[in-house]
Amino acid sequence: MSLTFEKYPSKLLEDAVDAIGSLPGIGRRSALRLALHLLRQPSENVHHITESIDSLRDGVKYCRKCRMISDGDECSICSDRSRDTHTVCVVESVRDVMSIEDTGQYHGLYHVLGGIISPIAGTGPSDLTVDALVERISSLVSEVENPQDVEVIMALNGDVEGETTAFYIFRKIAGFGVKVSSLARGLGFGDDLEYADSLTLGRSIVNRQAFKP
Amino acid sequence: MSLTFEKYPSKLLEDAVDAIGSLPGIGRRSALRLALHLLRQPSENVHHITESIDSLRDGVKYCRKCRMISDGDECSICSDRSRDTHTVCVVESVRDVMSIEDTGQYHGLYHVLGGIISPIAGTGPSDLTVDALVERISSLVSEVENPQDVEVIMALNGDVEGETTAFYIFRKIAGFGVKVSSLARGLGFGDDLEYADSLTLGRSIVNRQAFKP
Repeated sequence: MSLTFEKYPSKLLEDAVDAIGSLPGIGRRSALRLALHLLRQPSENVHHITESIDSLRDGVKYCRKCRMISDGDECSICSDRSRDTHTVCVVESVRDVMSIEDTGQYHGLYHVLGGIISPIAGTGPSDLTVDALVERISSLVSEVENPQDVEVIMALNGDVEGETTAFYIFRKIAGFGVKVSSLARGLGFGDDLEYADSLTLGRSIVNRQAFKP
Repeated sequence: MSLTFEKYPSKLLEDAVDAIGSLPGIGRRSALRLALHLLRQPSENVHHITESIDSLRDGVKYCRKCRMISDGDECSICSDRSRDTHTVCVVESVRDVMSIEDTGQYHGLYHVLGGIISPIAGTGPSDLTVDALVERISSLVSEVENPQDVEVIMALNGDVEGETTAFYIFRKIAGFGVKVSSLARGLGFGDDLEYADSLTLGRSIVNRQAFKP
């Protein structure tokens, strides 16, 4: 069977397939399947879907402190007084915050960069929220006696872009004298040595930890 | 990584993920990925997508003759005077019309049943456009001298539901004395005998065709 249809029976259908097919990971075949599915649904169901997308796009706000998606001016994490306000975990995206929150292991705050420095993709430091981060750290340092009481965790991907971005930020905040850490790298839990790549395995040996029986 | 997030940073995001995730073939993970993608797009792009979906759902019409999706009261196929108006190909869905049109091998008209008789799915003959088909055939027969000049092609799936539906329609229109045919079944072009299922291979032998060198 062919992957695309040359003729559409309706301009409305063709436009909808074009629009749905513009989404990442949805080819024209799936887009047509989705469009025909929507046609079989009650009108109110379809409007519910499109309205929730429009509301998301138009209504969503970004936390003025950490730039996380939020329903208000300050996100639920920043406004949670039980969290450790002197630890800031720097992540690339909203999705990363959700992943870390889901572990239930972190109780500090976040800073969403909104991207990563990538010369190939044409993303430079000015496209990210680095300046806002520097301001935040500066303000946090002024609240404590010892700058080492403030910790910045670099939770960026372990690729070249991630390392470049972490290094750029490190240089920007090094002057404050705050503690800077990065995510532990090593074998995943349950990983077989046999299948680990040599870079990961090598780092796991170099950064070996005290055995906790 | 977990498959679902327990906490969403925003109700708007959660609602959009729920709505997008209600579409067939899109899980919650993909729905979240799509929602976050939409957030990164310019507002007008997102509105273009939702508007084309709304326009499709609200604006699409069904051809009064064949029940095909159409922008007007009569579809582009039914209103094409160069087509053979005395051959009607009966299909389950809009999608089937598009598939057959795409072959470029058929020049008659269609009749979209809008489903298939399936006791399991609770779809009976009254849920389909069978009555309208019978009326169409009746009217076509009145236009010709010999009812055999009218042909009805059963282009339904080769499963139990398809065969049941074809048989039901056959009994409804048998009285008109029109020609009734069904799609040729056999090995696909390029198929290996070795991998053909025995039912298909058996039918291919029984319905063997004159060799055309």
